[in-house]
Amino acid sequence: MANRIDHLGIAVRSLAEAEPLFRTLLGQECMGHEEVASEGVRVAFFQLGEARVELLEPMSSESPLHKSLEKRGPGIHHVALQVDDVPAEVARLKAAGLTFVGEAPRPGAGGCQVAFIHPKSAGGILVELSDGAHGGA
Amino acid sequence: MANRIDHLGIAVRSLAEAEPLFRTLLGQECMGHEEVASEGVRVAFFQLGEARVELLEPMSSESPLHKSLEKRGPGIHHVALQVDDVPAEVARLKAAGLTFVGEAPRPGAGGCQVAFIHPKSAGGILVELSDGAHGGA
Repeated sequence: MANRIDHLGIAVRSLAEAEPLFRTLLGQECMGHEEVASEGVRVAFFQLGEARVELLEPMSSESPLHKSLEKRGPGIHHVALQVDDVPAEVARLKAAGLTFVGEAPRPGAGGCQVAFIHPKSAGGILVELSDGAHGGA
Repeated sequence: MANRIDHLGIAVRSLAEAEPLFRTLLGQECMGHEEVASEGVRVAFFQLGEARVELLEPMSSESPLHKSLEKRGPGIHHVALQVDDVPAEVARLKAAGLTFVGEAPRPGAGGCQVAFIHPKSAGGILVELSDGAHGGA
């Protein structure tokens, strides 16, 4: 089962432009930055209670996030749910008929395991399962 | 400032179809149902840590949510942030140049105050400010 929202992944065209806006909107300072080369994104994150708001900027036009921005514009890209055991949840949800995007589970940044449920299986939402190690986007 | 994510509002065409899916996805039972006549929606909600996942079904084709579903399909409709003082946050954000949808703040269900920041002012996201009384959608 999902224990909490781990993070909201928000697609932005430019961190330089989006960071000041979200600093104002959330009334908080940005907590840090990461590069997740495997996903082709630069990340700026804010802590919001037990969850994070992660602003995601594509590192190049090759990034899947770039294609998403071209198609849908900026906004919420995915929702990550924290689960205790990603492989076990993937198995449970596959058995229930849900489909995943790409390999699931797969290694995320920082040694954690992640998996992305296909939006067609999740009410139109790209849902990430994460063990909440906060290693990736 | 925003303290936490209060809820994710998810647009669905049919609660009867979406509820079993989200029960499976979240691995949890639905915690309850509400009707928010002022917004024209029926709500089914799940507790996810300190936040809620709210499935929103339009009560009729007159509901603004119906138009949103026609235009964008099912998926995340809005994100609600919990703030201590909605009118004070609205004043702060208006002073910073952000614009709101409709009257802000305005009474929500259950006697709370709510306000909706226009997606153009919030990185493409419809952001609700709520005092977290869990009275409305």
